[in-house]
Amino acid sequence: MSIMSKVTEPVLLLDEQKCRNNIQRMADKAKRSKIRLRPHFKTHQSRQIAEWFREAGISCITVSSLRMATYFAEQGWDDITVAFPVNTLEHERINRLASKLNINLLVADLEAALLLSQVVKYPVRLWIKVDSGSHRTGVLPEDKTTINAILEVINGSRNLSFSGFLTHAGQSYNCRSRDEIMKVHRDTSALMRELSDSYRSAYPDHEISTGDTPTCSIAEDFGIANEIRPGNFVFYDLTQALVSSCEKREIAVAVACPVVARHADRNEIILYGGGIHFSKESLDQGDGRKIFGELVWVNDEGWGEPEKECYVTKLSQEHGILRVTDEVFRRIAVGDVVAILPVHSCMTANLLAGYTTLTGERFEYFDAKKEYFI
Amino acid sequence: MSIMSKVTEPVLLLDEQKCRNNIQRMADKAKRSKIRLRPHFKTHQSRQIAEWFREAGISCITVSSLRMATYFAEQGWDDITVAFPVNTLEHERINRLASKLNINLLVADLEAALLLSQVVKYPVRLWIKVDSGSHRTGVLPEDKTTINAILEVINGSRNLSFSGFLTHAGQSYNCRSRDEIMKVHRDTSALMRELSDSYRSAYPDHEISTGDTPTCSIAEDFGIANEIRPGNFVFYDLTQALVSSCEKREIAVAVACPVVARHADRNEIILYGGGIHFSKESLDQGDGRKIFGELVWVNDEGWGEPEKECYVTKLSQEHGILRVTDEVFRRIAVGDVVAILPVHSCMTANLLAGYTTLTGERFEYFDAKKEYFI
Repeated sequence: MSIMSKVTEPVLLLDEQKCRNNIQRMADKAKRSKIRLRPHFKTHQSRQIAEWFREAGISCITVSSLRMATYFAEQGWDDITVAFPVNTLEHERINRLASKLNINLLVADLEAALLLSQVVKYPVRLWIKVDSGSHRTGVLPEDKTTINAILEVINGSRNLSFSGFLTHAGQSYNCRSRDEIMKVHRDTSALMRELSDSYRSAYPDHEISTGDTPTCSIAEDFGIANEIRPGNFVFYDLTQALVSSCEKREIAVAVACPVVARHADRNEIILYGGGIHFSKESLDQGDGRKIFGELVWVNDEGWGEPEKECYVTKLSQEHGILRVTDEVFRRIAVGDVVAILPVHSCMTANLLAGYTTLTGERFEYFDAKKEYFI
Repeated sequence: MSIMSKVTEPVLLLDEQKCRNNIQRMADKAKRSKIRLRPHFKTHQSRQIAEWFREAGISCITVSSLRMATYFAEQGWDDITVAFPVNTLEHERINRLASKLNINLLVADLEAALLLSQVVKYPVRLWIKVDSGSHRTGVLPEDKTTINAILEVINGSRNLSFSGFLTHAGQSYNCRSRDEIMKVHRDTSALMRELSDSYRSAYPDHEISTGDTPTCSIAEDFGIANEIRPGNFVFYDLTQALVSSCEKREIAVAVACPVVARHADRNEIILYGGGIHFSKESLDQGDGRKIFGELVWVNDEGWGEPEKECYVTKLSQEHGILRVTDEVFRRIAVGDVVAILPVHSCMTANLLAGYTTLTGERFEYFDAKKEYFI
């Protein structure tokens, strides 16, 4: 009996085999490239999925908040990078973590470095966040004044030590082909090499940390980088397929949604599954049409390629509108459950906050309202 | 000492006075118009805020899921409409609710009515959802064949009784002035009156339920409607201000975000507050610029109008980019906490899942993963 027959409300289905394949492929690549894989756990945020990484030989991880760091620390992860400009208002949590494990933080400007140096009471390794072209945050690599000023703060602090330069080439999300991704990768790599070279004699042990899912999925040679931090690859999603990081058949999560109404006049199926389940992230199909998901058929073995021309075209708070072909419309009835590949798996996982495997197991998701004990 | 000095992570601030004013204004209007106000609780989803409605004389409510109905039922609310095409896969929950309180469900097509008639074991009042122009879901008012077929199912069922016709004029969200909202209101009212008239002799006691926040905020005369079901008005948000339903100074929630970096070269402030806090809903400023929030200054009395030309221009998973004027850039430092009015308060409340009042009280938000006992 398929898992679909047990679903009564929107849930996030997890295909263990696809997910483990995604993890293993990236772990193998890191091994071949002799580079540390420090996967970003913000995508799955689940202690059970984290164990699959451990089985693949991973021991260092990345998270996106200090609270998330405490969650994984409680599960025994003891080398954690919080890849977000450090929020010094959480100094108690920083010190709690730093007193017990290897914690790596990052700063994107001098102000933050100064504040951190004033509150930190235990050893912390600090990365300087570099803006390699995404222009979200980070020090520009040519801004040596700021970099040197931050280094001075680090050198003057008893508890801070300099890890190196960390970047996230988020501009790779604008790519639409493997060639475009490789160009971003080459440009970022060159820029990080130049920056690293200019600090090599003064800081011979500093490291370079890079890694967004698109470049890590496509590139094989990571140049001078010491570690990569992709996250989304654990599940992938329709955005990554559009960017050319993955094939749609590799997407390891799908939202199971009850069908609550049908409109034959416009081949529209109304799903119990809306913005509070998928998030409102959409993809432009190029012709101005926005889509919020694609239909897949689920059996005991999981799902394959999405059905052609069957898209979630609109989401409100709890409703989703799935527009389908004539043939598919006839196959779906009210009371059925259908599965939809998400546009952005990180956001969808955060909203559905838990996983149902194809065998019916429930996996936990980090609870941002809970205080973890470490 | 302002509440802002206690914030260390993104939280949703709630201004009790603004919120109570919004509730009272709508309750007074319903009383003047001699119409039942059955507010939609999907916006706040909080038992404490629900009590403010009770103090304003409200006893009948609307929710968007059966599980949310059990949450408010547990708090003593005993006349609840689930304003979503009924999900018959949750028949156990339907029967649990129907055995204990007045539960009102709705169907948008014949298939759902047939399924419901097969599973319902206790009395349920059933609305026929009518599509009055939003084209999300519902029976077209001219489709008398479907309406009559649904009525036949209801009449043939021991436990179903016919409440009347329910609509949601969601097209009002496309309005940009009070005149445009009034036009939607007049068109919808005329259409519902015509539909009601044609079933008056056969079903003399049937009711008409309407009500989206824009038309309920602006209109004074609700014609033949027996009840209105606005929800968002409890908080309002930047979308409602754009639509012309409210003034920005009436928005009763704001997201408090720590400042984690600043980029002087482009007057950008990096907030700890991203898509998993605000949702990715944006507003088009008319000139192609999308915004995700506006800056307000908070003191002990709350906040006023947003600061001019200070917008959240981009969100990623945990980062927000706040672009400000030169003068405002100089006023904000790393380590400060700023407050941002949200684009869509329903989605933001769902993500932040709890409220902090200006006096530091914490209010609960419905937990969609919890099983409530009723």
